[in-house]
Amino acid sequence: MHHTDNPTLALARELIARPSVTPEDAGCLELISERLRALGFACERIDAAGVSNLWARRGGEGPVLCFAGHTDVVPPGPLDAWKTPPFDPAIVDGMLYGRGAADMKSSLAAFVTSIERFVAAHPRHRGSIALLLTSDEEGIATHGTVKVVEALAARGERLDYCIVGEPTSVDTLGDMIKNGRRGSLSGTLRVKGQQGHVAYPHLARNPIHAFAPALAELAAIEWDQGNEFFPPTTWQASNIHAGTGANNVIPGTCEVMFNFRFGSVSAADGLKARTHEVLDRHGLDYEIDWHLSGKPFITGRGALVAALSGAIAETLGIDTRLSTTGGTSDGRFIADICAEVVEFGPVNASIHKVNECIDAAAIEPLSLVYERTLHTLLAA
Amino acid sequence: MHHTDNPTLALARELIARPSVTPEDAGCLELISERLRALGFACERIDAAGVSNLWARRGGEGPVLCFAGHTDVVPPGPLDAWKTPPFDPAIVDGMLYGRGAADMKSSLAAFVTSIERFVAAHPRHRGSIALLLTSDEEGIATHGTVKVVEALAARGERLDYCIVGEPTSVDTLGDMIKNGRRGSLSGTLRVKGQQGHVAYPHLARNPIHAFAPALAELAAIEWDQGNEFFPPTTWQASNIHAGTGANNVIPGTCEVMFNFRFGSVSAADGLKARTHEVLDRHGLDYEIDWHLSGKPFITGRGALVAALSGAIAETLGIDTRLSTTGGTSDGRFIADICAEVVEFGPVNASIHKVNECIDAAAIEPLSLVYERTLHTLLAA
Ligand SMILES: [Zn+2]
Ligand SMILES: [Zn+2]
Repeated sequence: MHHTDNPTLALARELIARPSVTPEDAGCLELISERLRALGFACERIDAAGVSNLWARRGGEGPVLCFAGHTDVVPPGPLDAWKTPPFDPAIVDGMLYGRGAADMKSSLAAFVTSIERFVAAHPRHRGSIALLLTSDEEGIATHGTVKVVEALAARGERLDYCIVGEPTSVDTLGDMIKNGRRGSLSGTLRVKGQQGHVAYPHLARNPIHAFAPALAELAAIEWDQGNEFFPPTTWQASNIHAGTGANNVIPGTCEVMFNFRFGSVSAADGLKARTHEVLDRHGLDYEIDWHLSGKPFITGRGALVAALSGAIAETLGIDTRLSTTGGTSDGRFIADICAEVVEFGPVNASIHKVNECIDAAAIEPLSLVYERTLHTLLAA
Repeated sequence: MHHTDNPTLALARELIARPSVTPEDAGCLELISERLRALGFACERIDAAGVSNLWARRGGEGPVLCFAGHTDVVPPGPLDAWKTPPFDPAIVDGMLYGRGAADMKSSLAAFVTSIERFVAAHPRHRGSIALLLTSDEEGIATHGTVKVVEALAARGERLDYCIVGEPTSVDTLGDMIKNGRRGSLSGTLRVKGQQGHVAYPHLARNPIHAFAPALAELAAIEWDQGNEFFPPTTWQASNIHAGTGANNVIPGTCEVMFNFRFGSVSAADGLKARTHEVLDRHGLDYEIDWHLSGKPFITGRGALVAALSGAIAETLGIDTRLSTTGGTSDGRFIADICAEVVEFGPVNASIHKVNECIDAAAIEPLSLVYERTLHTLLAA
């Protein structure tokens, strides 16, 4: 611990120093558990298939306010591109550098110190404080948060409020809360034609040509107009492949991968049906493998959003914005057992890049925002 | 020589027995040259870069009637799929099997025997008889017929009539003459977009989406309506590739290979201009590498078509059809120095396949057709 460090920065350094590349936890959960046990938390490990998961709870009553997140980080990438070693946290010009500094070990540290102060001030708070942490969020995520949620659901344990500590801020700490995420629906489409020679197109059926008008139509469709919380649903073709390289052969099939990002206005089944309608109307011979990787979830302007945005306004003087843009997160799983789920954390500009960093001066204020939210929702 | 063989079948067997896979000649040209020298032909080798080429001529005057073709064959493919060894010609159920039986060693044999009979009957024929043979027609063809044509052009030697012995018959010997070939114009198109994440399509520009309406338009265009000799010009996309396999990444570029087959109604420059017009009108950022692999050529109903179709009618009792369909052939090169070029040879159903074969009973009649054409055009 550097003698000038505040407690949150000090804990963030300790966590970053543990090289917990997915699915490794590298001791992060045990470090956090020690601190929580000292506060009277019951700490339960729900590990699965090499993934380390922690469920910690203080209190037996509702409402339950849960902090959720992950100890794992993405690989550091080329080491010589880093200004400082990625697992050797260092402050340079006011920025704390290290893999996980922004995503999301500073948030984990802020969870712990905010709870420490709150419990010290309110040892007999209302309801319960909980933490749901995993070492597999950046990976395929099949044995992480989803396993803990399944275990809690199996014993009928529900949450009331959940704050996922993902880095949601854009320019300044506090400028954005994610109060939901779009769903993600993928499809792999194979349009079948009839292979042949380009000199004899009447003996072949070119699947590129057959698909082109349907592709143009799919790319131009307005799927919905969005709503208060979600931008309009989008459809994107990410891959298209046909042909073997020979320029005198009409290919027999054309394969396309596409993805919907959709809000609560549209349902996955409706999007599938409309896709099939377009392809059928164009008379295509095709098949689609569908994969729903995340349903959308949304948390309206209820008690949690009010408490968190109030805490941001009072602590940071910022009128925060709500957003549902961006990729999927573990919030999609937690929403199954929790009525109100939001994500809030530091500035995300550097995540998953070399020289990942966070404004060192923004770490303690993040802890203060979490503490004030605890206070609003659980102070006795 | 099998004792029941006629001279043309016997020579076809000798040629098939020489494994002249492109660019190997395997002694075929020397075998033919010996026979021609005995008739008073001047035989000149114009070999280049490992390719064997023969220019043989009897007579110093015009008109010049030239027989053209190739001694090379495509590889036999899987040997165990052949009923009989591919370079060991054998007649089974009336069919002569062997690599090159149809494409085009039977035609070469028919050239030689037709000339032998014609010269015996008309030792002082009009004009000149010529042969232009190469061992690189099935390959990239850059050192074959085109080199001989260049050499002849350089010394001002022109042809009046040329019969290329490619297998043009469809169901029965004599049912089709090719009196021209379409041109072939290829393009490799790269449509440029802006790579990004599918969750943030407004920050990217998807080249698949941008290109789709132009692709649909190009696939639907009627480029021309064809004419008496050529079917309508066709455009075919043979390959389309975009994306790296990840289904959450909007690709940065989309690459498309396409090919025009065009008749004498349209010119290559006009097709290029119309392609650019479509792409420009759709506001695409793109580049195209163009490759003109063959200009179209056409031989109208002149003396050569009349002589050959008359010979087919008289010899075979067939009212032949003229056609310009199919791939490119060496006729495109010869047309540069010859006003009338046609292609005529045996049934092509089995060419380039395993168990390539030709009706053994159709080989001598092919020689008779060539002989009668010689007679019509050059008998004194
Ligand atoms: Zn994260
Ligand atoms: Zn051929």
